[in-house]
Amino acid sequence: MILDGKKLKEKKLNILKEETSKLDKKLTLCVIQVGEDTASEIYVNQKKKMADFVGFAFKHIKLKNDVSEDYLLSIIDKENKDDKTTGIIVQMPLPSHINETKIQNAIDYHKDIDGLSDINTGRLVHNRKTLISCTPKGILELLKEYNIKIESKHVVIVGRSNLVGKPLVNLFLNENATVTICHSKTKNLKDYTITADILISAVGKKNLITKDMVKQNAVVIDVGITRENNKLYGDVDFDNVFNKASYITPVPGGVGPMTVTELGYNVLEAYQLRSDANE
Amino acid sequence: MILDGKKLKEKKLNILKEETSKLDKKLTLCVIQVGEDTASEIYVNQKKKMADFVGFAFKHIKLKNDVSEDYLLSIIDKENKDDKTTGIIVQMPLPSHINETKIQNAIDYHKDIDGLSDINTGRLVHNRKTLISCTPKGILELLKEYNIKIESKHVVIVGRSNLVGKPLVNLFLNENATVTICHSKTKNLKDYTITADILISAVGKKNLITKDMVKQNAVVIDVGITRENNKLYGDVDFDNVFNKASYITPVPGGVGPMTVTELGYNVLEAYQLRSDANE
Repeated sequence: MILDGKKLKEKKLNILKEETSKLDKKLTLCVIQVGEDTASEIYVNQKKKMADFVGFAFKHIKLKNDVSEDYLLSIIDKENKDDKTTGIIVQMPLPSHINETKIQNAIDYHKDIDGLSDINTGRLVHNRKTLISCTPKGILELLKEYNIKIESKHVVIVGRSNLVGKPLVNLFLNENATVTICHSKTKNLKDYTITADILISAVGKKNLITKDMVKQNAVVIDVGITRENNKLYGDVDFDNVFNKASYITPVPGGVGPMTVTELGYNVLEAYQLRSDANE
Repeated sequence: MILDGKKLKEKKLNILKEETSKLDKKLTLCVIQVGEDTASEIYVNQKKKMADFVGFAFKHIKLKNDVSEDYLLSIIDKENKDDKTTGIIVQMPLPSHINETKIQNAIDYHKDIDGLSDINTGRLVHNRKTLISCTPKGILELLKEYNIKIESKHVVIVGRSNLVGKPLVNLFLNENATVTICHSKTKNLKDYTITADILISAVGKKNLITKDMVKQNAVVIDVGITRENNKLYGDVDFDNVFNKASYITPVPGGVGPMTVTELGYNVLEAYQLRSDANE
């Protein structure tokens, strides 16, 4: 059975639109972009489209490629202090003369809707209320939509990025799953993947996960994206794994649409977290 | 073969003593204790003994059991600002009217030698230079002392406490191990433990890990402590597992002595981190 992220995106964004319309304040999503990167343009446009649909104000700050780190930090500081700005994203990647880690930690953690700051990462580890990285959160939402049980299941994650793999470990641990994390230094990857009740691959390597690596009736989540001759491929050999899996996400149309959806929800949550903090 | 924490403690504390003696500043370990708890008294005394041996000043702040959270916070704030105080520990557990999470996050992360704050936890996840929880760090040091290879090994951790299990995941992931974390909601625990090259149990349940659950030649690390009729027991059925394991820690004398050792090293690192930050 297909886990349909496109369909869930539509459903969830409609709900978010309704919830947002009930607020007495207009929320603002601020995207700070440095330089001209083709992929970044596409991603920023997706965010704008989401914001327009849901009813957020979209504040797009475009800076030149040679902007100094200090100037970028001053812009972030201004948005941190601006009460009208609900959530802030600095579009990655940044030019090499700018320290991405420093930038991510400069965003006030109450507005850090990418959930990449050290504080928000620590809060996730400690299972505290926090803004969680959008792709991992989208995966969890997709599983919940299809009533897939997580507690006590063996979740095997392939890939240990700060953006996806590592938050997934903590997110699923908080859901009481037993969790294994594999990566480029893992030997005999199949020994691990074959034991997974829920297998999540987030590497970006076409056909990394083949049929023989998947347990019968496993749930297979494909976060990888490889572009080849203008076509998108995931990490999973979809056509062959399809019949063995109980549920599987397609690429595109699986996890992808969930990321921008959860970004929208994080804007609302950032607003609510700050309202709670002010009480 | 026995992993001798007692011996390594002696060796490492002598090195630390020498390094400390070279500094032109006397470092201060500040322990804040609330109320009278028998176990806490023992732990605080161990810290004092270590500090005296190494040559740290030991600042012991004892507060009454009914102290208010606000007052405790004001004491922490004072120590945060006191340039003479190098590292701060608030001895756990705290009386139930005080929020432990709030207290742990009130300590300046540069002085948080327990490594329990959200920021330091996030920094560990992101593999940044940071103060790391002492028991997990001690385990890593013990493995390194015996030249046990970690990269690409399967490390299985039983127990997901904020103090031990969760930091272990990130510490071993940063060492390029493949990591699995199990806990009370894990089903068929043996299915996981039997696959471990390095098995770490941190639960506090006598005889949880029996011979049939351990792979031949596995490295077995026992962090559990159960007190029965004035005798200490670990999680591992030591007598029977001993012949199957390539290396094993005893209880007591294995991981235990490493915790206070790494606390000492964290005081030195806190000093160095702040010096670096001031440059």
